[in-house]
Amino acid sequence: MRCFPFCKLPGRVMGIRLLRFTSVVIIVLLLVAGALTALLPTIKDDKLPNSRREPKTQSQSALDSFTLIMQTYNRTDLLLKLLNHYQAIPHLHKIIVVWNNIGEKTPEEMWNSLGPHPVPVVFKVQTVNRMRNRLQNFPDLETKAVLMMDDDTLVSAHDLAFAFSVWQQFPEHIVGFVPRKHISTPSGVYSYGSFELQNPGFGNGDQYSMVLIGAAFFHRGYLEDFQQQPEAVYALIDETQNCDDIAMNFLVAKHTGKPSGVFVKPVDIRNLEKDTNSGYSGMWHRAEHLLQRSYCVNKLVNIYDGMPLKYSNIMISQFGFPNYANHKNKM
Amino acid sequence: MRCFPFCKLPGRVMGIRLLRFTSVVIIVLLLVAGALTALLPTIKDDKLPNSRREPKTQSQSALDSFTLIMQTYNRTDLLLKLLNHYQAIPHLHKIIVVWNNIGEKTPEEMWNSLGPHPVPVVFKVQTVNRMRNRLQNFPDLETKAVLMMDDDTLVSAHDLAFAFSVWQQFPEHIVGFVPRKHISTPSGVYSYGSFELQNPGFGNGDQYSMVLIGAAFFHRGYLEDFQQQPEAVYALIDETQNCDDIAMNFLVAKHTGKPSGVFVKPVDIRNLEKDTNSGYSGMWHRAEHLLQRSYCVNKLVNIYDGMPLKYSNIMISQFGFPNYANHKNKM
Repeated sequence: MRCFPFCKLPGRVMGIRLLRFTSVVIIVLLLVAGALTALLPTIKDDKLPNSRREPKTQSQSALDSFTLIMQTYNRTDLLLKLLNHYQAIPHLHKIIVVWNNIGEKTPEEMWNSLGPHPVPVVFKVQTVNRMRNRLQNFPDLETKAVLMMDDDTLVSAHDLAFAFSVWQQFPEHIVGFVPRKHISTPSGVYSYGSFELQNPGFGNGDQYSMVLIGAAFFHRGYLEDFQQQPEAVYALIDETQNCDDIAMNFLVAKHTGKPSGVFVKPVDIRNLEKDTNSGYSGMWHRAEHLLQRSYCVNKLVNIYDGMPLKYSNIMISQFGFPNYANHKNKM
Repeated sequence: MRCFPFCKLPGRVMGIRLLRFTSVVIIVLLLVAGALTALLPTIKDDKLPNSRREPKTQSQSALDSFTLIMQTYNRTDLLLKLLNHYQAIPHLHKIIVVWNNIGEKTPEEMWNSLGPHPVPVVFKVQTVNRMRNRLQNFPDLETKAVLMMDDDTLVSAHDLAFAFSVWQQFPEHIVGFVPRKHISTPSGVYSYGSFELQNPGFGNGDQYSMVLIGAAFFHRGYLEDFQQQPEAVYALIDETQNCDDIAMNFLVAKHTGKPSGVFVKPVDIRNLEKDTNSGYSGMWHRAEHLLQRSYCVNKLVNIYDGMPLKYSNIMISQFGFPNYANHKNKM
């Protein structure tokens, strides 16, 4: 009887015969399984050109993840609340907290005692309380993308995941949730504002010429570029403790020759400043805040010898989210 | 007395003295005016990077305007209604009517008798009633951009002006108002549909992988490319009298390696087919229409030996239009 390859096995014991039989059955099953896999249909690659969600590890590709940079002053309670939220955002690589509470201990001990955490957090202790501290070219940055958030702003994970995918398609732009504009006036003096100001007058509807960096993604290269700006820019930001975001929009617009920002309409964005116990309510409540920003626009035009900001009216939303039929029309 | 350059003039008559005086006054005024213009502030260029509205002339730049291509069959009443609308769209250069009413006179005489018109219309008489007639590389095309519209679809001028500006920022894509998708199934067979189908499953929300050309802008180069496709593609379109738009999306996706379309959410899009006197209600009412489209997707995958379509979830709307505060959030 044919028994190769089993003839070589010692065959004299009843147990061995059973072993032979079992081995044959197993081998036949494996061959059948192998044949079946060969019959499976080929899965065509029709995946998103964007990065898919990958497990958060330190080795995550520099293009597939981003670093959150959050500057904080006198609102540590809000900071900790927000850290619990942002630490769990998809595609987050690391958090950098820019600690503007000069002379005060960071909450690093508490943070560590409440670990483990999904991502590492680095507390960068500052020596002077400056608005532009957050625009340093931090060596801790390992990703191409930066997400910059104010320490009183909560944006949902859904919005952030979508906006990050949009940034990946527009990496040279500031992709964010807060659009603003400048307008020209007949006197040639510019003014700064939002949609309550008149439309710039290019066809229907409104335009924006800036996207604020307090809730936006941008390329880390712009932090490097920011270190190369004229001294007068730093002096202006330090003098006003304001306008670092306007300066960044000038920088990006000059670099690209296009509108600096791409506006993504947020579904869920919240300002938590009323929730703070510190009583501190943020720079934008200062009486002179908006006047300062108009002032900054005109100063920056002088410094850069021209107005580089360009208008856009592109508003991006997520197709089929949150409402799966949010694009339905009556046709 | 100093009188140069007037000393040379004959000075003896009283009238000449007056003439001298007047000339001096005029010259002084001109000099003052010249000095004033030098003091005017420089107007910085902060205009839209996109084309501005220009008067409609034949010499309009090939990039600043588009050509409407509208194929028509058995709905001349709708065609004429739509021509009155579309002839007045901003940035329109010319209209090409693809006349699929074989053996029937075009309404050219009536059109001419009701002139003048804002733009020229060319009636391209066809010899066979084919769906793909509209995808010829018409020599009448002088613009880079084509707007293709079905002969029962009305899109507002506002939507079209905005979508054209979006196309100018995404010239290699089909920029339009009707998104569709394919989905993969475990069997490997694809199916075609809209948002009523399950989401493709890449994160939150839905995705689209096609933008239908019956209401969209695209680059005329794709009409040239379409002439170079495998015979089997033409055979498929002729066999089904359908799917020319799916084929175009395959073509564009293959060419770019990116999602073929960019979806612009229309504010005002209307299907007028109920308004026709012809009783003809359009191909998509045929019982087999949607099944054919799924069939076409799978056939095209065979013909092109792969699935080139890619998903996108970008939905573009116009900032501040129609509602100037349409991006306002509760923050």
